[in-house]
Amino acid sequence: MRRVYLAGPDVFRPDAPEFAARLKAVCAAHGLDGVSPLDALAGGDDPAWAGLAEPLRIARRNEAHIAGCAAVIANLSPFRGPSADAGTVFEIGFARGLGKKVFGWSTSAVGFAARTRAFLGIAGARDAQGMLIEDFAGMADNLMIDGAIAASGGAFFAGAALDAFARCCAATARAVG
Amino acid sequence: MRRVYLAGPDVFRPDAPEFAARLKAVCAAHGLDGVSPLDALAGGDDPAWAGLAEPLRIARRNEAHIAGCAAVIANLSPFRGPSADAGTVFEIGFARGLGKKVFGWSTSAVGFAARTRAFLGIAGARDAQGMLIEDFAGMADNLMIDGAIAASGGAFFAGAALDAFARCCAATARAVG
Repeated sequence: MRRVYLAGPDVFRPDAPEFAARLKAVCAAHGLDGVSPLDALAGGDDPAWAGLAEPLRIARRNEAHIAGCAAVIANLSPFRGPSADAGTVFEIGFARGLGKKVFGWSTSAVGFAARTRAFLGIAGARDAQGMLIEDFAGMADNLMIDGAIAASGGAFFAGAALDAFARCCAATARAVG
Repeated sequence: MRRVYLAGPDVFRPDAPEFAARLKAVCAAHGLDGVSPLDALAGGDDPAWAGLAEPLRIARRNEAHIAGCAAVIANLSPFRGPSADAGTVFEIGFARGLGKKVFGWSTSAVGFAARTRAFLGIAGARDAQGMLIEDFAGMADNLMIDGAIAASGGAFFAGAALDAFARCCAATARAVG
C-alpha cells in the first residue's frame, strides 16, 4: 500500500489518537497506508536530533514522515482564521517542494475571498489596515495552496469531515495507488 | 549577489511595489539580490502555464522564483489570525522541501502560545472547540515553521518591520553570501 501523510490540525483534537485511527481506517479501505503526525518513525528518530528541543524534534519527524510518503492528504479546514492551520500549510509546501502529490479536504465549501470577508466582517476589497483581500474565482484558500494542489496533480474536496476525507482518499488512491 | 526570495503578505499592501523596492534596497545594502513575488521571472513565464487561470500562474511563478533563490526571507508577522500569512507559510515549506535556507522576521515578539491565547481571548490549554493550544517554550509560530528555520540553518528576528528585516538580511548574507 502507498503511504500517505495525514496533515491537519486534527492532532490538536481532544480525541486525536482515535480520530487518527478513523482516518487511517478510511485510508485502508481505499488501499492507502495513512501516516499520522502522531506516529513514531518506522526506523525511530534520527540520533542526530537527540539534542533538539521537543518541538524541533517533532518538526524533523513530520518532515521525515512526509519524505517517506507518496502524497499528502491535508485537512485544509479554516483554523483560527480564514486560512488552514499553519503547520498543515507548511507541510503541503514541504511536500510540494519534494515533488509529492498534494490533496486537500475541508469542512468549508465557501471560497477564500468570501470566507476572509466574513472573518473580517467587511465587504470591500481591502481590510481595515488597507491590506488587499486575495480574490480570485474558485480558490479554496491562498492561491499558493490551490496552485500546489493543481500543479501536483492533486484535488480538493469540501463537505462533512469524514465524507470529504473519504472522497479525497478515493482520488488519492487513483493518483498514487 | 545571491538571490533571496522575499515572502510575505506585503504584496497585499496598498503600497506593495514601493515597499518591495524598500526591502530590495535593504537586501542590496547587505549584498543580497532580493526577489519579490511581484517580479516577472527572468526568463518569462513557462509557456506551459499559458492555459492556467491567473492565480494558478502566479503560484507557479512564485514557486519558480523560490527555486531560483538561495534562501527565503519571510515576513512571518501574524496575519488575520495568530499565525503568519498562509501563502508565506506555504512558501517557506516549499523552500525547505527544496533544501533552501529559511529566514524569518516578524513585527510580533510575543510567543506563539501567548499570541494564540490573546487572539482567542482564552487562558487555558484548549480553545472553545476543545482544540489544543500548541504551547512550547520559545516558538514564534507553529513548530513546523520554527523547526524549518532551525533545521535549515536560518534564523528569526522580531522587531519594528524594517529593523527586524535588516537584521534578518545581515544574518542571511552571512549564511549564503
